[in-house]
Amino acid sequence: MMKRKTIIAIIGGGAQTCTQEACDIAFKVGKLLIDNGYRVISGGYGGIMEAVSKGARSSEKHQDGDIIGVIQSLQPNDANEYCDIVIATGMSYARNQIITASGDAVVAIGGGSGTLSEIAFAWQIGKPIFAFNIQGWSGELVGKKLDNKRSDTIISIDSPENLVNLLKRL
Amino acid sequence: MMKRKTIIAIIGGGAQTCTQEACDIAFKVGKLLIDNGYRVISGGYGGIMEAVSKGARSSEKHQDGDIIGVIQSLQPNDANEYCDIVIATGMSYARNQIITASGDAVVAIGGGSGTLSEIAFAWQIGKPIFAFNIQGWSGELVGKKLDNKRSDTIISIDSPENLVNLLKRL
Amino acid sequence: MMKRKTIIAIIGGGAQTCTQEACDIAFKVGKLLIDNGYRVISGGYGGIMEAVSKGARSSEKHQDGDIIGVIQSLQPNDANEYCDIVIATGMSYARNQIITASGDAVVAIGGGSGTLSEIAFAWQIGKPIFAFNIQGWSGELVGKKLDNKRSDTIISIDSPENLVNLLKRL
Amino acid sequence: MMKRKTIIAIIGGGAQTCTQEACDIAFKVGKLLIDNGYRVISGGYGGIMEAVSKGARSSEKHQDGDIIGVIQSLQPNDANEYCDIVIATGMSYARNQIITASGDAVVAIGGGSGTLSEIAFAWQIGKPIFAFNIQGWSGELVGKKLDNKRSDTIISIDSPENLVNLLKRL
Repeated sequence: MMKRKTIIAIIGGGAQTCTQEACDIAFKVGKLLIDNGYRVISGGYGGIMEAVSKGARSSEKHQDGDIIGVIQSLQPNDANEYCDIVIATGMSYARNQIITASGDAVVAIGGGSGTLSEIAFAWQIGKPIFAFNIQGWSGELVGKKLDNKRSDTIISIDSPENLVNLLKRL
Repeated sequence: MMKRKTIIAIIGGGAQTCTQEACDIAFKVGKLLIDNGYRVISGGYGGIMEAVSKGARSSEKHQDGDIIGVIQSLQPNDANEYCDIVIATGMSYARNQIITASGDAVVAIGGGSGTLSEIAFAWQIGKPIFAFNIQGWSGELVGKKLDNKRSDTIISIDSPENLVNLLKRL
Repeated sequence: MMKRKTIIAIIGGGAQTCTQEACDIAFKVGKLLIDNGYRVISGGYGGIMEAVSKGARSSEKHQDGDIIGVIQSLQPNDANEYCDIVIATGMSYARNQIITASGDAVVAIGGGSGTLSEIAFAWQIGKPIFAFNIQGWSGELVGKKLDNKRSDTIISIDSPENLVNLLKRL
Repeated sequence: MMKRKTIIAIIGGGAQTCTQEACDIAFKVGKLLIDNGYRVISGGYGGIMEAVSKGARSSEKHQDGDIIGVIQSLQPNDANEYCDIVIATGMSYARNQIITASGDAVVAIGGGSGTLSEIAFAWQIGKPIFAFNIQGWSGELVGKKLDNKRSDTIISIDSPENLVNLLKRL
């Protein structure tokens, strides 16, 4: 099979819930992932989803098609403007399953109940989960297991650089 | 509008993950909910889903149609034998959204990552959430908020009788 | 396994598109199916979906739980008032897959593009398809095959009585 | 808003059902669409989906990220090898809604019941539909309306060049 670029799913709070700290991290994560040859996939809306997409756009290595947003509605125009590709699902929150299943790894940056449902999905389908040790569900769950179905734990991340170093070892 | 029976969504671990304590509670919850005129909806498979359905069947007040299973696959025969009605979704874990959206309230009994995704969905769409204070995600989250989108908390439940008393006040 | 009531999926046009002829048939089909011990499942909204549910309610044999509506939205109250049980999917038109997968057989009564998508789904997943020989996609497709994946054809139906007679032989 | 590349959804039969004629057309369509600056999205499996993706790869203008496959399963590796990006839905046939909703226009090339469900979805959500006038559902429906919800018809296409000319006028 031809080699496909690795896709990293970024999850975190929307425009109403994300902290400035989480948004700043998301921007840097987006930039650094593209700098290092990854694609990013997110929920395509505001907050962390917009910050990671904007950061990805800011990378000098950004190529059109590197930034994917998978949105709840049937209207591609509902996505943030930094997505190169919009997948319109019409599935409401069930689109969270699609984001996590389409990523080769999942990275949580803060987040509320929506992020929590995505971490749970990612766990169920066996994706490696990286979680920033900050306020929100990512910080709550670092180093933990969600149940005994897996032998690994949710990996604690301290910085965007730390994340990329660990991703390279996957 | 004609009055419809209230539907209670019961969530918890499958056959591999549920504890005996959780299964015993689920059986009693199923019976008591039917005794008190509710319908039950669950994920339709084993473990808690089977125990609550079996308990519901054991109620003298059980009427055909009171027990609904919403399953991941497209094959109704994959459901446990105690479901009166099987909704076959073909949506994998995304069917968790449907279980919580179709219940007027959600009751968590123990549970692992699947249950956690359902609690998160229920929170996102504003459903009242009742959680048994036992091992598993239901116990972990009693009395907590998943984020600041809601002003209420996940309600701690000590017994099936306690649950029914609180449901009657809804 | 305990025997479950057979569920018949009824598909057809919504409030804007269904003809009076189709609605009259749907009412009679709903009544006759319940008279004969079946459950009915539909899309839970207006038009044919409401007519079949209303007809089902009019049967003397109707038991609470016999009429199921599987709706597009996350809000059970969006369903018509004759549904005993509402399954709220939040999946938009993708809920059409769930209606056809949950029925043991599928019955088309007239219908536009939504009904056509349901007939196509039913064909793909191997459900027996009965189609009233009237205006709309059900009439267009009587006696036809949608492709060569199946050896049977879409069965032409002339009357609600004819339908029930054929269903009994399944 | 930053301008996103227009995405064209290509639908048609899988490996078992597509004709050689349809596959040859799909290959040329894929190549020509990329030559002209479009992205392509398909169901990501075999037959037409593979042919259009392979054709797209053969274009000198192909850039990584131009070819998207939206698959039924949760396993990205189930997609054909020519997809640049795989969206794994876990939604079975319901993923057909996502393909059509994510395209700015939909192009049908032959096809059986799966393609028919996608044409029906595309009609329901108001997407322009172009259909090759060949054997299969695309040919059956050229020049037709699926119901009266729209005033336009399914547009008959004679050649890949004809398609691109019409797309440019959208």
